[in-house]
Amino acid sequence: MSIVVVGSVALDSVETPAGKVEAALGGSATYFSVAASFFTKEVKLVGVVGDDFPQEHVDFLQSRGIDLAGLERVSGKTFHWSGRYGDNLNVAETLSTDLNVFETFAPKLPENYRDTKYVFLANINPELQMDVLKQIRSTELVVCDTMNLWISQRKTELLETIKNVDIFVLNDAEACQLTGESNINKAAKRLLDCGPDRVIIKKGEHGAATFTKTSYFSAPAYPLEDIFDPTGAGDTFAGGFLGYLASTDDLSESNIRNAIIYGTVLASFDVEDFSLNRQRSLTNAEIQARFAEMRAITQF
Amino acid sequence: MSIVVVGSVALDSVETPAGKVEAALGGSATYFSVAASFFTKEVKLVGVVGDDFPQEHVDFLQSRGIDLAGLERVSGKTFHWSGRYGDNLNVAETLSTDLNVFETFAPKLPENYRDTKYVFLANINPELQMDVLKQIRSTELVVCDTMNLWISQRKTELLETIKNVDIFVLNDAEACQLTGESNINKAAKRLLDCGPDRVIIKKGEHGAATFTKTSYFSAPAYPLEDIFDPTGAGDTFAGGFLGYLASTDDLSESNIRNAIIYGTVLASFDVEDFSLNRQRSLTNAEIQARFAEMRAITQF
Repeated sequence: MSIVVVGSVALDSVETPAGKVEAALGGSATYFSVAASFFTKEVKLVGVVGDDFPQEHVDFLQSRGIDLAGLERVSGKTFHWSGRYGDNLNVAETLSTDLNVFETFAPKLPENYRDTKYVFLANINPELQMDVLKQIRSTELVVCDTMNLWISQRKTELLETIKNVDIFVLNDAEACQLTGESNINKAAKRLLDCGPDRVIIKKGEHGAATFTKTSYFSAPAYPLEDIFDPTGAGDTFAGGFLGYLASTDDLSESNIRNAIIYGTVLASFDVEDFSLNRQRSLTNAEIQARFAEMRAITQF
Repeated sequence: MSIVVVGSVALDSVETPAGKVEAALGGSATYFSVAASFFTKEVKLVGVVGDDFPQEHVDFLQSRGIDLAGLERVSGKTFHWSGRYGDNLNVAETLSTDLNVFETFAPKLPENYRDTKYVFLANINPELQMDVLKQIRSTELVVCDTMNLWISQRKTELLETIKNVDIFVLNDAEACQLTGESNINKAAKRLLDCGPDRVIIKKGEHGAATFTKTSYFSAPAYPLEDIFDPTGAGDTFAGGFLGYLASTDDLSESNIRNAIIYGTVLASFDVEDFSLNRQRSLTNAEIQARFAEMRAITQF
């Protein structure tokens, strides 16, 4: 089943205690699509890049089977994020955000994207997320992410958007910021009252938890000793999650739990190298082996 | 099988966003013993109290079947800790620590305590922990806890002590402080090189993880929306853990995992009320029900 993802495609300059990269491939839609592509070849990407976007990145995304008919190329520079992580890899310090062509991004879904079973709204302005939803004719599952910027600057619009989504994915700090709660279980309950049937809270090195009004599931992170670069881990998690769901087309609680584990597994590979470098060599056998390990380290 | 626990018996004044208590029953050995008493009636407590220690607390501990032959009563005041928790319930602000009779505490094990299959060294000065070990004639499993104070003030002695223990239990911040690592998986690996066969890292609201050189297991916390008072949760976790192990007398990996879940369950009840108030009404049926819930919220 096809997935439409709308988000950023970027060039990132990132520094962590393990090293740094300059203008490397990044962006929420990129990380999401590549992760999802390990499960389904029906990922349709909506985003925008400038005329400086290297062809090799386009080639890489196409080699993953990602449909780029929705990737606009316009005159100007590609969105460029520059950030630094210290020893606390959970928090990035943004050094610069050059929106460039992303500043005027108005997502336009190609005609054949408008009927799609799965939609992922990456962390763009919630007004644009709503605009995307208006362009969708038929869908079954809409998953939405956000970020601290929109919670502080577009809270009303964000709350309006999540009324219309099925699954709301965000991190623990964002869940607390949006609800004013300091306890994530309470925050999740408040978010479930805002519209979504399910909330998934990403907790970085502490894993992820998912809540509905009647169920709860907690997954640890895969235990890694060295994190090279956490950039994109959240979007990679979402891509693994929704890619697996779309490939199985089964929205039962038990399958959603499997999807969360696949999301966790994909995210654990993402952070093992800068940008999407680890994903370039990643194999299905490695994914399956780590999924089995996740079961082994949690069962009792 | 019997457990000897050596630690503090205290009167705590605690303030949290949910309320406060004055001079309520507390202390590491107290929390540990009461939790363990839900699994075994062979808990032998070594500690000291002053002549102000209320008889009702002695009666309560005895009603739980705890052997108090090792509880010294000396002239003076009982150890009194006073602390406050803000919205971040993971960190206590100590308002005052009046060691009182605990200042000169020199644990003396009654003769019939010296052969015991299980030993728990709660977070006292590591020199005293070593002194306790010297008094033990035969044992099979020594579990040791510590705290930030000893890591900063008695690091050499602590490292000496943990050479002689089987399981080292500490929280995530302590593990990082002791090893100088910021990643807990790396910290655990370093600690395993210091002597213990197993390390258990308590992560508060994020659960607990246990490491050996060949195995890893991660357990989430039980999801609670309201934490009334986190005091004693770590010692209660250890008491549930070791109480269950002693009652089953099975040190296999799978049984140790069950024990960690029972520790988690006991700790989840502890934080539902101040002091040991929740433990006073706690039933085995409630413990079993929450154990089953822990399985339901983690399995996939």
